[in-house]
Amino acid sequence: MIPRYSRPEMASIWDPATKFRIWFEIEAHACDALAELGVIPKEAAKTIWERGGKAEFDVARIDEIEREVKHDVIAFLTHLSEFVGEDSRFVHQGMTSSDVLDTCLNVQLTRAADLLLKDLDALLAAIKKRAFEHKDTITIGRSHGIHAEPTTFGLKMAQAYVEFERCKERMLAARKEIATCAISGAVGTFANIDPQVEEHVAKAMGLEPEPVSTQVIPRDRHAMFFATLGVIASCIERLATEVRHLQRTEVLEAEEYFSEGQKGSSAMPHKRNPVLTENLTGLARLVRGMALPAMENVALWHERDISHSSVERMIGPDATVTLDFALVRLTGVIENLLVYPERMQENMDKLGGLVFSQRVLLALTQKGASREDAYRFVQRNAMPVWRGEGNFLELLKADKEVSAKLSDAELDELFDIGYHTKHVDTIFKRVFGKA
Amino acid sequence: MIPRYSRPEMASIWDPATKFRIWFEIEAHACDALAELGVIPKEAAKTIWERGGKAEFDVARIDEIEREVKHDVIAFLTHLSEFVGEDSRFVHQGMTSSDVLDTCLNVQLTRAADLLLKDLDALLAAIKKRAFEHKDTITIGRSHGIHAEPTTFGLKMAQAYVEFERCKERMLAARKEIATCAISGAVGTFANIDPQVEEHVAKAMGLEPEPVSTQVIPRDRHAMFFATLGVIASCIERLATEVRHLQRTEVLEAEEYFSEGQKGSSAMPHKRNPVLTENLTGLARLVRGMALPAMENVALWHERDISHSSVERMIGPDATVTLDFALVRLTGVIENLLVYPERMQENMDKLGGLVFSQRVLLALTQKGASREDAYRFVQRNAMPVWRGEGNFLELLKADKEVSAKLSDAELDELFDIGYHTKHVDTIFKRVFGKA
Amino acid sequence: MIPRYSRPEMASIWDPATKFRIWFEIEAHACDALAELGVIPKEAAKTIWERGGKAEFDVARIDEIEREVKHDVIAFLTHLSEFVGEDSRFVHQGMTSSDVLDTCLNVQLTRAADLLLKDLDALLAAIKKRAFEHKDTITIGRSHGIHAEPTTFGLKMAQAYVEFERCKERMLAARKEIATCAISGAVGTFANIDPQVEEHVAKAMGLEPEPVSTQVIPRDRHAMFFATLGVIASCIERLATEVRHLQRTEVLEAEEYFSEGQKGSSAMPHKRNPVLTENLTGLARLVRGMALPAMENVALWHERDISHSSVERMIGPDATVTLDFALVRLTGVIENLLVYPERMQENMDKLGGLVFSQRVLLALTQKGASREDAYRFVQRNAMPVWRGEGNFLELLKADKEVSAKLSDAELDELFDIGYHTKHVDTIFKRVFGKA
Amino acid sequence: MIPRYSRPEMASIWDPATKFRIWFEIEAHACDALAELGVIPKEAAKTIWERGGKAEFDVARIDEIEREVKHDVIAFLTHLSEFVGEDSRFVHQGMTSSDVLDTCLNVQLTRAADLLLKDLDALLAAIKKRAFEHKDTITIGRSHGIHAEPTTFGLKMAQAYVEFERCKERMLAARKEIATCAISGAVGTFANIDPQVEEHVAKAMGLEPEPVSTQVIPRDRHAMFFATLGVIASCIERLATEVRHLQRTEVLEAEEYFSEGQKGSSAMPHKRNPVLTENLTGLARLVRGMALPAMENVALWHERDISHSSVERMIGPDATVTLDFALVRLTGVIENLLVYPERMQENMDKLGGLVFSQRVLLALTQKGASREDAYRFVQRNAMPVWRGEGNFLELLKADKEVSAKLSDAELDELFDIGYHTKHVDTIFKRVFGKA
Repeated sequence: MIPRYSRPEMASIWDPATKFRIWFEIEAHACDALAELGVIPKEAAKTIWERGGKAEFDVARIDEIEREVKHDVIAFLTHLSEFVGEDSRFVHQGMTSSDVLDTCLNVQLTRAADLLLKDLDALLAAIKKRAFEHKDTITIGRSHGIHAEPTTFGLKMAQAYVEFERCKERMLAARKEIATCAISGAVGTFANIDPQVEEHVAKAMGLEPEPVSTQVIPRDRHAMFFATLGVIASCIERLATEVRHLQRTEVLEAEEYFSEGQKGSSAMPHKRNPVLTENLTGLARLVRGMALPAMENVALWHERDISHSSVERMIGPDATVTLDFALVRLTGVIENLLVYPERMQENMDKLGGLVFSQRVLLALTQKGASREDAYRFVQRNAMPVWRGEGNFLELLKADKEVSAKLSDAELDELFDIGYHTKHVDTIFKRVFGKA
Repeated sequence: MIPRYSRPEMASIWDPATKFRIWFEIEAHACDALAELGVIPKEAAKTIWERGGKAEFDVARIDEIEREVKHDVIAFLTHLSEFVGEDSRFVHQGMTSSDVLDTCLNVQLTRAADLLLKDLDALLAAIKKRAFEHKDTITIGRSHGIHAEPTTFGLKMAQAYVEFERCKERMLAARKEIATCAISGAVGTFANIDPQVEEHVAKAMGLEPEPVSTQVIPRDRHAMFFATLGVIASCIERLATEVRHLQRTEVLEAEEYFSEGQKGSSAMPHKRNPVLTENLTGLARLVRGMALPAMENVALWHERDISHSSVERMIGPDATVTLDFALVRLTGVIENLLVYPERMQENMDKLGGLVFSQRVLLALTQKGASREDAYRFVQRNAMPVWRGEGNFLELLKADKEVSAKLSDAELDELFDIGYHTKHVDTIFKRVFGKA
Repeated sequence: MIPRYSRPEMASIWDPATKFRIWFEIEAHACDALAELGVIPKEAAKTIWERGGKAEFDVARIDEIEREVKHDVIAFLTHLSEFVGEDSRFVHQGMTSSDVLDTCLNVQLTRAADLLLKDLDALLAAIKKRAFEHKDTITIGRSHGIHAEPTTFGLKMAQAYVEFERCKERMLAARKEIATCAISGAVGTFANIDPQVEEHVAKAMGLEPEPVSTQVIPRDRHAMFFATLGVIASCIERLATEVRHLQRTEVLEAEEYFSEGQKGSSAMPHKRNPVLTENLTGLARLVRGMALPAMENVALWHERDISHSSVERMIGPDATVTLDFALVRLTGVIENLLVYPERMQENMDKLGGLVFSQRVLLALTQKGASREDAYRFVQRNAMPVWRGEGNFLELLKADKEVSAKLSDAELDELFDIGYHTKHVDTIFKRVFGKA
Repeated sequence: MIPRYSRPEMASIWDPATKFRIWFEIEAHACDALAELGVIPKEAAKTIWERGGKAEFDVARIDEIEREVKHDVIAFLTHLSEFVGEDSRFVHQGMTSSDVLDTCLNVQLTRAADLLLKDLDALLAAIKKRAFEHKDTITIGRSHGIHAEPTTFGLKMAQAYVEFERCKERMLAARKEIATCAISGAVGTFANIDPQVEEHVAKAMGLEPEPVSTQVIPRDRHAMFFATLGVIASCIERLATEVRHLQRTEVLEAEEYFSEGQKGSSAMPHKRNPVLTENLTGLARLVRGMALPAMENVALWHERDISHSSVERMIGPDATVTLDFALVRLTGVIENLLVYPERMQENMDKLGGLVFSQRVLLALTQKGASREDAYRFVQRNAMPVWRGEGNFLELLKADKEVSAKLSDAELDELFDIGYHTKHVDTIFKRVFGKA
């Protein structure tokens, strides 16, 4: 968790203080259920909530105890007893440490998921706004980095929009994957604790009971969660890469926002680097790379081993904090993106209309020219344009064999950009429900 | 795609012959829609279906043409025209190669998903059968490879069952991710083809229209698909690892089925190696590793580049064929698994009842012993048992301070295995809806 | 192993026929050593070489036997006996299958390494040629995709050259990693075979004896080998990405060679897609992704399990064949790359000299201007240039405060490209030993 | 960088304070060279060393300046000027930020490599000690988790020893990969700075000049570095997995050291969990997973983009700190490993001598029995032993057809463990140069 790439909202989910608060809530809810079942006194459960609820847990103190007892949950319980007093002996009855640890991790991941969902909503809103703003902003579509046919900048945004809408669906599924709770004991048999306790705590914490836990909550859930983050990160990379391409000196159809005050902007006015989207590219690599260790975590030995723990201590915070940061950064990039429609037009015009060659070819064929002839007619007019000698439309009009098939008006129509944008509304309706 | 790890059902999905048949269907359905729109003659569409439908495409011939024209779709269309005749000029009107290629890939992946879902069903059935068969087969639960508390072999199976049920849910979601169709032209603007054609083809092929394609179907869908296969592979690894552990000489609580005729089984009767589950472990590594290239495929440049293609040519068949093979192999392993309940009991008995020490500790505390005292009492009886000197229950009964708190009958009850299995039915009901 | 991305030279290393030939050689060399030690008759060893040496092994026949005996090495030995006759009983004495399998795999990987080294040499030669050809071809250096300072195309090539020279060093190290031989028996103790046999076979096959094998050759060697291939693949991706950038429509400083006959080249003369380098980008993802399963293969259980085998059956051929193909393809791309120096100059000129702004700033400071003043002077002349209004050098000359510090001659000199290329020779000497 | 898995020695390399000290040294050495070249006054260089050398850089203050100027190197230089005074204007002349940043990163990685090499030496020493201690400690060798043939615990250690010796070689190569320095300016042309400055700084910092840098040092070097760490981590996983297996309840041939005082050790004396080696397994997953992002970092755009930076900010510290911690932890595990030779013998004896069946088979064949007969004789005596009915050696002696071929003395000899250990010295000599 690099402070530079962290937002406090997400980082705080991984604070020791947050963790201990969640631990307390799990324990206290369990006490409620145990009291209801008559295992511990109702009065004790009440006291635990009252005193523990007000307690300000001292992380340093807990660490100190842990160094002595070499056990994190015992250290916490010892510290808790300093607030709760004698009734603290009723806390954690019949439970194992993993009941607390695994349920807490899932609470943290669920909260992280909620924040990521919020981030995705903000990103979607930003993209949607730019999509409608530039619904009709003509730009050249590029395949293989080479000019292909015209499209609009709004369509680029619409593409990104549905892609991140899919990411939202995936995130919702990933959230569901890890929103489970286990209070099931040493090997998950509920030998020492009634399953009703698990049900109560699950409900109280906004989770589902884990159908079968084995001291631990099965790690396929977490693998799927982190794999999903990896896919979302890759979508971030895609949009970031688009911006990086658009900003390069020779293209310059869009730029990351660059405040006037930003150092160096004026002496080297061209030197506005797409550093935010480059950074997002790197962050995507990081988040993606964490999917693998998470998948390797699935095959724990027998009912559990603890090899997953070190992995999760790192990727739990790192993947969520990094993805949260990246989503928010990308949202800012899109919101503030400087878009240059004139430059888009200029770039498209550079090829003197050659991007319409395919359509001319098709029209000639439809007018009865053989494929070979049509090809030859188009070719002999395309080549000079390519060498920078002339405008494609003008040359075609001047070509006798072409004009024998297509009138000037028909040729003009072939070069009509409207041909390419006529279904923009259709696509927008698919994506946004309106155009 | 290694023949050794392939099943014909899945391999055939990736046959060139299958691919060309799908290409034909996409083209022919598109002709229907174009005919309906009046773009091409209805009679032509009919002829195309009739002649193409009966045609036996010659893969070698298509390859030969491709070597000449250096374009796979053109090669196919040329070959198709050899069957269809003159009307073949109406085929592919207004379409680009990617319309055919990407839609075909998704048809193949969808079919692969259907087969994997069938595999999962068979695996689930196999696991369920063994789960009920061994619902009450007592075995020691192990954390960290060390004996913890008793559980049942049926619970191990129930755990695997819900894990693969989750895999099925994930597979369904992954199938939905890639069941889309794009017939949208060079940069996805439908400039040369009506969106209704895409809608028709999608419906006819059992797909959804891709909301925004850009010549290509966006690769975040495929990334999610392959990431999901990676997670499922990791679940396979988990169950395979369990079998490998159970089969090791010192444990031997279960074994992969070993036919009497299998070479070497009798001269070295102990040398029955869990080679199938070891193999599954390796296959899991392979499938998992393919998730990363799939994620790197997402960030194509602008409207598309073709870097994804080589990746998919390899991992498309490899990941699905390997996972299919692995699921079927695992199903066989589970169906035929030799389970040794007596050996499970023997292993559990080896520790002379020490696995009950925790419960004795708890009982002593509940009877009023201080935590420190209880610990001391248990410890002094546990240590000789650990050294192989005596039985834990007997020693406890003979310990005066223990017997002052717990009667022989009470101690017997603490060593009752029923204490640990009392909620097996509860868990089975959660998992299977019945116990 | 996709035929499309395979060269016969590398693919043949992985042919079953090649494998069986290597198996034969290992067995026959072992017989020589056993005969020398007096374990088997010298005459038998001679017969084995003579008859086996001439034998044409029938892969289909061996497969057939394997289906029956379910053991690949036994199947081979059975087939071998069909050629060798009675003396075949002396073959494989005291050896285990892994002695043959693991040594053979390393022979194959060593041969693959040799081919890859040859590929690297050819690539290096191609890059070097283009480096000297374009040593002085001025082009703009770009950081963040934005024009920075001038460099030369030759320097770009020189950078690639040293990078692939490092790859060659790495490949040599990787070759050394896997050039080992093990003939050490069931758990590597040489219980049934003298270590001298291993030493003899190793020498005869051009390998080193594995210091400690445990039935298998330790897989950290293979992990390092495949990780190295992954790094080399990433270097291929770097150079491929450079070409893809240079070829994009707006830049077009270089292009993959495009034969005149290639379909579509003239009707859409701009539509020359960098499909080879895009393909290389995808191949790099594949090879890189195989490093992870190879690393997971290291932690075999105890003396060995067989989980590595399925992984290696796939990535052994796939990684080497794909990298070989990619290196050869990249060599072709570089050899035939169309380089457009004029376009490089044009692109550089587009910014009206702004790339020299930094140097002007520095010169003004050196002439005594405060940093703030210098910045202000440069800025007010840079901005109009940026807006396309004027040439930077002219504006500076016309600026009184600038000309008070720098004469026209001095300014001219600041815009001298020679300033930027003065150390090209130095760098070439570092890289090529000459300039 | 998780404090729990960090050692101060390695963590301190990544301290901001360390970084700024290295930045200072790079700048000051560059001043020396610039002074020598007459670019700046010698007196200034001297002052910079004197004042900067004594300065205690204030990290918080630099951060504060950075927030204002939004540039880390400028922030540092500003802070430095607060100590150095007016001569600070001679610092950084003709250099770019990357000259400082990239050279510094390589200094840090080189120091990290040195520490890792020291760790490897300590680990090797620990393994060697245990190897000689247990050179003759008989234990069963296991393939596929199943008893195979006897080996010694010392041989297991010897295997680990050579494996980590290879890791040391790899680490040395990795160190060499990243021990380079670049002071070459905006696109690496030395336009504004003489190459001699780079040579001087390189030498002074213990580095080699980077032959061709392009503002940045090429990232294939770092990819190779991190890939190497991934391989070493995988070797750690192998040895850790061995310990985990040996410690499991049913095997218990070795245990991680467990201090008497450690909580819970006596009440549940069997519950000594191999938590350190499980932890190492997880740490290996983490380090391995970082190789991929490092490889993706190689293909920077043109002369450089900054996508690598965020990746390195995370994996630079994380991979080195984690691997350092893991190596030291593994060293402790090996040094203190509790080894139980008696238990090893007991486990081996469990199969009643069946592990010698292969050798008996061989001996019978050598005595003239046909393979089929030999197999049958062995089989009929092996099966009862396998069912727990009798001792293999006794049964063989009582078998008439066996005793017709092999005398009791000969049979005894076949069961002689010395047969399996006769080459231990040979192997030790290979590994340690002595036995």
